[in-house]
Amino acid sequence: MPSANPADDTAAGVDIAALLERGRAMSTPELRAAVDRLASPMDTVAAYHFGWIDAHGLPADGDGGKAVRPALALLSAEAAGARPEVGVPGAVAVELVHNFSLLHDDLMDGDEQRRHRDTVWKVHGPAQAILVGDALFALANEVLLELGTVEAGRATRRLTAATRKLIDGQAQDISYEHRERVTVEECLEMEGNKTGALLACAVSIGAVLGGADDRTADTLEEYGYHLGLAFQAVDDLLGIWGDPVSTGKQTWSDLRQRKKSLPVVAALAEGGPASRRLGELLAADAKSNDFASFSEEEFATRAALIEEAGGREWTSQEARRQHAVAIAALDGVELPEQVRAQLVALADFVVVRKR
Amino acid sequence: MPSANPADDTAAGVDIAALLERGRAMSTPELRAAVDRLASPMDTVAAYHFGWIDAHGLPADGDGGKAVRPALALLSAEAAGARPEVGVPGAVAVELVHNFSLLHDDLMDGDEQRRHRDTVWKVHGPAQAILVGDALFALANEVLLELGTVEAGRATRRLTAATRKLIDGQAQDISYEHRERVTVEECLEMEGNKTGALLACAVSIGAVLGGADDRTADTLEEYGYHLGLAFQAVDDLLGIWGDPVSTGKQTWSDLRQRKKSLPVVAALAEGGPASRRLGELLAADAKSNDFASFSEEEFATRAALIEEAGGREWTSQEARRQHAVAIAALDGVELPEQVRAQLVALADFVVVRKR
Repeated sequence: MPSANPADDTAAGVDIAALLERGRAMSTPELRAAVDRLASPMDTVAAYHFGWIDAHGLPADGDGGKAVRPALALLSAEAAGARPEVGVPGAVAVELVHNFSLLHDDLMDGDEQRRHRDTVWKVHGPAQAILVGDALFALANEVLLELGTVEAGRATRRLTAATRKLIDGQAQDISYEHRERVTVEECLEMEGNKTGALLACAVSIGAVLGGADDRTADTLEEYGYHLGLAFQAVDDLLGIWGDPVSTGKQTWSDLRQRKKSLPVVAALAEGGPASRRLGELLAADAKSNDFASFSEEEFATRAALIEEAGGREWTSQEARRQHAVAIAALDGVELPEQVRAQLVALADFVVVRKR
Repeated sequence: MPSANPADDTAAGVDIAALLERGRAMSTPELRAAVDRLASPMDTVAAYHFGWIDAHGLPADGDGGKAVRPALALLSAEAAGARPEVGVPGAVAVELVHNFSLLHDDLMDGDEQRRHRDTVWKVHGPAQAILVGDALFALANEVLLELGTVEAGRATRRLTAATRKLIDGQAQDISYEHRERVTVEECLEMEGNKTGALLACAVSIGAVLGGADDRTADTLEEYGYHLGLAFQAVDDLLGIWGDPVSTGKQTWSDLRQRKKSLPVVAALAEGGPASRRLGELLAADAKSNDFASFSEEEFATRAALIEEAGGREWTSQEARRQHAVAIAALDGVELPEQVRAQLVALADFVVVRKR
């Protein structure tokens, strides 16, 4: 049972920071060992991407991200009654697939910054971004399949299915960029593919490696999928109204990238005066040649219209709705009580986080 | 037993054309069904790449390649005493991986033509080339793992290992472009990774799906690896001295691309007068700005120097040497006599082909 120690500043006494740190500490050595298997110069390029070295090859202590996925993969093993160690190859494989997609997406999207640093294609060129992405994807399968068990085959199959969805989501994201209007449903489907599917896999992969049956794995994936949608809704809020000091991104980050994120599509769908005015402005922005030189005020105007048209409130509610669906999904599975409390606490953390 | 019908214009009475056609006919419907699973527009982009539709989306009857790999994957199943059908998912998975690598390599190398048509990145843009390549790689694993058997897991593991080598080979190929000198050994290692590994996997994957043990699979891979090296040596010869009408490539194709292929590196290693003159010319070419406007005569001069320095003869001998090693490897494994004759005949075909 979780402690009810009032000194714990977290839901139901679960120490989220410790949970995330455990996932990072247990999976990073294995992740680094896997990346070390890559032939030169791919090992160096990958180490740069992960933030372990800088552009000159010197050791760095980069921001490796929030490490929600590794924490989930370890909890996933415990959900099946296995030791958390059993989930480590799953955590590593999911991180490898996640980072394969980041390497390719950054190149496809022309994004020049990731985790406060130049992206791989900017530093090492497009060919290395493609090649090292491919290598990380292959490595993900290798790390699982070399376990040589039936469970590893099932885990790889689930990871492959999630990867296919990830790719579908990126294809949708790219096609939406060329369209003037995207519906809320289309945006949710895209975010489900891009963020939900791999988070879902993180929540099932440890359990599958630990011998869980398909029904248990599917139910855990349902929790993970909706957790992913809640996570993305919060990301979309932070992408417009996040504090740059916390997020490490520019002010109005997603507006600068003209992203058709949830607050934007929800505001455009509302149809009132602010919604229509926003639509006119964004349509003009899409054709504008001096968009890059827009002032803070111009972005602030757009953010205010999104808020006035209800895009901010709708997205907040959507995050809470997905959070509730995620937690409800846990009722469908037998779980050790501590694991259940930790999964609930992680879901709570995802919707209140500031970065 | 193979027939000794003197009307058969092939080694030991094996009808190579029929063998290749069987591989194509049995695997193409499954390959098309797999590609049809891709979400739009990735299905269309992939269909264009495979030559099934043209750039306007109209049905086409493109050159799908020689189909050596599918033929091998089916023979591989028969090598393990299974029906050829058992090898079909393996044939499809290997073709998917092969084409994933073509999509990415063409983009990385800036190649604008493939199988007489514009490459995917030229027609559909770099993002689609990356995305559809990724999707084909994921699909390869999916096609195998959805079989849900222990054998499928083992086959996927071998395919993953081959894919990692494929990626290593492309990394070497890219790094060699920036170097003035490449040794014969480095060139062979690169070609073994880029061509040998996946051909080796084609020769083991059907057997693994048919229940063969690891020793049998390893021996079949040894045959396939050296077959791949023989295949590539012949490709390197055709890339310089091939008849454009047969190969569908330009005259002096590899010289135009400044490829450090086997005849070139062997000629440069020889060290005599022609070798040194060749080295001077190629070093100047690397810095030349009007290389693109070189005349037929200028390429003919280089080809003649390569031949004079023994690069052509060395590469022909290398093809025969690898051919012999491939066939010798078959002595290490119990095989139905007809399968053995067909594998030998395919090896003979690979070294005498004109395209």
